[in-house]
Amino acid sequence: MPSMYDGAIQALIDAFAKLPGIGPKGAQRIAFHLLNVDESDAQELARSIIDMREKVRFCDVCGNVCENSPCPICADPRRDHTTICVVQEPKDVMSIERTHEYRGVYHVLGGAINPMANVGPQDLNIVSLVRRIQDAEKDDNAEPIQEIILALNPDIEGEATTTYLSRLLSPVGIEITRLASGLPVGGDLEYADEVTLGRALAGRRAVG
Amino acid sequence: MPSMYDGAIQALIDAFAKLPGIGPKGAQRIAFHLLNVDESDAQELARSIIDMREKVRFCDVCGNVCENSPCPICADPRRDHTTICVVQEPKDVMSIERTHEYRGVYHVLGGAINPMANVGPQDLNIVSLVRRIQDAEKDDNAEPIQEIILALNPDIEGEATTTYLSRLLSPVGIEITRLASGLPVGGDLEYADEVTLGRALAGRRAVG
Repeated sequence: MPSMYDGAIQALIDAFAKLPGIGPKGAQRIAFHLLNVDESDAQELARSIIDMREKVRFCDVCGNVCENSPCPICADPRRDHTTICVVQEPKDVMSIERTHEYRGVYHVLGGAINPMANVGPQDLNIVSLVRRIQDAEKDDNAEPIQEIILALNPDIEGEATTTYLSRLLSPVGIEITRLASGLPVGGDLEYADEVTLGRALAGRRAVG
Repeated sequence: MPSMYDGAIQALIDAFAKLPGIGPKGAQRIAFHLLNVDESDAQELARSIIDMREKVRFCDVCGNVCENSPCPICADPRRDHTTICVVQEPKDVMSIERTHEYRGVYHVLGGAINPMANVGPQDLNIVSLVRRIQDAEKDDNAEPIQEIILALNPDIEGEATTTYLSRLLSPVGIEITRLASGLPVGGDLEYADEVTLGRALAGRRAVG
């Protein structure tokens, strides 16, 4: 008895099941969805995968994904090019952009230091960050960097990377900051874990 | 400030977010995954979408998905062609095949009666089921159908379809059965809902 679908449909299910966050049942559901949608919709999905691979590059300045280097943020003269926010992934740039609170530029490391997964400082875009700071220092037309904001994930790998970068960059004499830890807005004190609550207490601020 | 990614990557995120079970965050995660995998893996996914659309057909006999009609199950002489199991979707065929308990053939309706979604009997493969039963009756080389198993989902739409089909087919004089309702194997009586428990009680069987 067949335990798999006939040829092409099983191949599609297998291809989707390899993607992150999609299990075998989800892959099957997507395959049957794609069987029932308009031909043009299915082709558009296939074409957008190929298109993305052909067009997407990494920005030579900040390491973010873009179609033309430098990326729109690095090329924007209205942004503050003296403040660099260091993040792990391109999606973190998007998260910070959505706050509409940041007018500086970015540097995308492409990950965080993780000895368990064999990711060391040499695997991240750290050399390009140091060179970027030095170049701004030397270049008479560019303003020197004033502040580096370390906006890494609040987990073990992010903390390790924050520690590494702050030690590496502190001799340069630029202000180095990190994101505040504390209670999430809209959260409930009762449900905050003790580490978060401890950080919120340690980082308490005067009212008014 | 940009609230979207540059061109092709946003187009890919949008295309994935249209698929069932994938939200905007999941689509973003998949897009960055596809940016980092080998070129050949990304191309394979795109090709398997196009391939599936080109190759997959519906079986002229049972309505299941296949590459060549009749499908491998309908074309298999070792199967019992006098028993037809009626299911809603091709994935239900696969679920029943995985039990290794069924040796008959199938009929895939392509859905269930659902007045809220404007799906009536005329939208399902019901005419082809009736014709299939009649053809087996008339054809001297084929054995007449002995049993129709209605294996529809145990929800409102499935129940409506089961009722409709049993009324439609009962005058034909063929045995019509349905799947047993009861406690799921490995389940816990405490957590069974009252409808399921009621059905399990009504359908109780002599022990040994």
